[in-house]
Amino acid sequence: MIEYRNLRVALLGGGSVGAQVAALLLEHGDELANRSGAGLELVGVAVRDLDAERTPAIPKHLLTTNAEELILGADIVVELMGGLEPAREYILQAINSGADVITANKALLATHGPELFEAAEQVGAQLYYEAAVGGAIPIIRPLRDSLAGDRVTRILGIVNGTTNFILDRMDVHHDTLEAALATATELGYAEADPTADVGGYDAAQKAAILASLAFHTTVPLEAVHREGITEITAEQVDAARKAGYVVKLLAICERIAIEGRDGEYGVSARVHPALVPVAHPLAAVHGANNAVFVQAEAAGDLMFYGAGAGGRETASAVLGDLVSAARRHVIGGPGIAESTHATIEVLPMSSVRTRYQITLSVIDEPGVLATIASLFSEHGVSVEAVSQSVSDGKNLASPTATLVIVTHEATESSLATTVAALGSNSVVSSVVSVLRVEGV
Amino acid sequence: MIEYRNLRVALLGGGSVGAQVAALLLEHGDELANRSGAGLELVGVAVRDLDAERTPAIPKHLLTTNAEELILGADIVVELMGGLEPAREYILQAINSGADVITANKALLATHGPELFEAAEQVGAQLYYEAAVGGAIPIIRPLRDSLAGDRVTRILGIVNGTTNFILDRMDVHHDTLEAALATATELGYAEADPTADVGGYDAAQKAAILASLAFHTTVPLEAVHREGITEITAEQVDAARKAGYVVKLLAICERIAIEGRDGEYGVSARVHPALVPVAHPLAAVHGANNAVFVQAEAAGDLMFYGAGAGGRETASAVLGDLVSAARRHVIGGPGIAESTHATIEVLPMSSVRTRYQITLSVIDEPGVLATIASLFSEHGVSVEAVSQSVSDGKNLASPTATLVIVTHEATESSLATTVAALGSNSVVSSVVSVLRVEGV
Repeated sequence: MIEYRNLRVALLGGGSVGAQVAALLLEHGDELANRSGAGLELVGVAVRDLDAERTPAIPKHLLTTNAEELILGADIVVELMGGLEPAREYILQAINSGADVITANKALLATHGPELFEAAEQVGAQLYYEAAVGGAIPIIRPLRDSLAGDRVTRILGIVNGTTNFILDRMDVHHDTLEAALATATELGYAEADPTADVGGYDAAQKAAILASLAFHTTVPLEAVHREGITEITAEQVDAARKAGYVVKLLAICERIAIEGRDGEYGVSARVHPALVPVAHPLAAVHGANNAVFVQAEAAGDLMFYGAGAGGRETASAVLGDLVSAARRHVIGGPGIAESTHATIEVLPMSSVRTRYQITLSVIDEPGVLATIASLFSEHGVSVEAVSQSVSDGKNLASPTATLVIVTHEATESSLATTVAALGSNSVVSSVVSVLRVEGV
Repeated sequence: MIEYRNLRVALLGGGSVGAQVAALLLEHGDELANRSGAGLELVGVAVRDLDAERTPAIPKHLLTTNAEELILGADIVVELMGGLEPAREYILQAINSGADVITANKALLATHGPELFEAAEQVGAQLYYEAAVGGAIPIIRPLRDSLAGDRVTRILGIVNGTTNFILDRMDVHHDTLEAALATATELGYAEADPTADVGGYDAAQKAAILASLAFHTTVPLEAVHREGITEITAEQVDAARKAGYVVKLLAICERIAIEGRDGEYGVSARVHPALVPVAHPLAAVHGANNAVFVQAEAAGDLMFYGAGAGGRETASAVLGDLVSAARRHVIGGPGIAESTHATIEVLPMSSVRTRYQITLSVIDEPGVLATIASLFSEHGVSVEAVSQSVSDGKNLASPTATLVIVTHEATESSLATTVAALGSNSVVSSVVSVLRVEGV
């Protein structure tokens, strides 16, 4: 057997991912050493309390509550605690003591990414975060390295497994949102407080990370437009299916030509439910799976698919980063700086252009369609298709019809003024639903 | 503007990929420099003759027929000539002169990979080959880095766009193989001599590369079992669709427990047409697209999807490698050795276990099903499902029926003896079709 030098690995956090990372490190140590060119010695796991019941996979003698001491003696620090503090402080401490850092902490990266990358660059350390987006799916490395010579133009990502599970249940089982969420909670796909998931907060953090990486600029979390799935109804999902779409919560990152400034581009990041055509590869992503669809100028359309969460799955991504960090230690030299030195304007939601599906309940009388059509054209929104369903006949005194209108691309701002005008027009009983259409 | 040191890039080959790489290098030079930390100066493109008509994107003053001189002055050599010689010789020359090498040459890697990797390791150079498998799809880097801490157990890849286009036409348009091939040729998806594609040779080269990388061992091209799609009939494709499958040409790489040797594993690589359930993500890969489905112990199921060929698409992968090579030059230090130091036994096709669908034309009389069933069980092959179609009634004197049998997992060798026994049994008029079933 070859003798390798040992690298000291410190784990911060002994939750489900941490326990799996520890177990795999201890179990596959020899294999990992062969692939890294260095032994990976787990020197300790920092936890909040030493009650080992929650972490049976971690040998008791490795557990400690003294994270700072553990960090000081480590070559590689793996942060799996989550949350902003003390995770941020510990990572800065690790970087400044010369360690490479691996983290799965999307909230921290979306909030303090630039500060952490800057600190790493100052001392020539490297920060790895493959596990922060898409769980086991390799997406960070492909964007950072494989597509580094190309120009990414758009990312459409299903990056939150909980909401995909819920929307998939609503589509396949015709569940209500409440019933689907209850099932998700029961099966462990949703947390007791599901706000971070169903409110789109988790997806927004991932959108900020993906946009920053794909466009080589800093896209702050505050600049990500965010809508959750809480307003999505079973009726919308069923109507979407009949019209040839599925409803997905998408994280969308785009490079957009700036209107009126010839040849200049900005970027935008947004999270909201959207209609995706059934033939699109993203429509086939079921259950709690994740997928990231990437469009690049030369590469064309790419998709990365897999389990978006899970302790063992996420541990796979962490261990891939560990091997990379170990290989780098063996070679020596400084880390590769995040190439976010470009400063590209981050555009507000109002400048995004997309298609919309608008469902209206209208008075069923001659001339209504013409009234609606001219209202769209007055606001500069071009209509691609209209379908009208028969009157429901429930109220014979004032019969209504349902109009479903799909627009060509329009800006959010012109759509907003159109919808406002529709709402106040006398032939419109109500604006039933407004959904963006993506991936066409 | 930041001033970077310049790295001298030499291009060998001015075909469709080479021309695109040159064009993108010249067009996006500043962006690539920002991402690499070094300027990428295209110092020349070696071509066989200087007739620039075929390569309008390459400025004439960059063209040369003297590849050896070009290589000597380069920091990074990009080999896009294809073929075994002189590509092999030029790459060795580049490595020995201290350059990093990028290649898209799957034939060369599958045939002489170990020699080239060994040469690179000797001098601390690095060999990049993201473009050799799956065109624009990042698959080499995810296998090499992202999954380096995991254990890949199986790869199912659609890695040849031509055959996927043909089989997809047969499925969707009910074309014959000949008609589908003619369309592929007409649209530029098949070459004048389609043997490398339809015979499975191209896919076998990619299988050897993927298996070597995924299992960290050397899987020689000769060890890859290879069957093409030339025997696939329109009837088989239609019958498969009715039974809930699509026919795909798959490159399959597996880690297999060795029978009778407790705890020991071997690897196997094979290329053949297979039935894939319609619900499997690979079944939705249409046209000339590629996709690689990877199963790993911790990560679970992953899929990588995109354009498998095309000059511009492949150039994207080459440029990603170029940025990686440039970053490495900026940092200094030796390259990362291919971790193929493990020596894992490569198993023959006879030890592969999979499921089979066997279609038989049998004499339509009582007791036939019992005869067939006992014949399977005598050979140790367990039957999962049998369906019998009604007699076709064409020949009333000796009516026949069609039996479609799907087996549980069995070894190739027991299947082969079963099929031989079926063929010589008097109740069997003919063995119509034997296809492997994968991805269940």
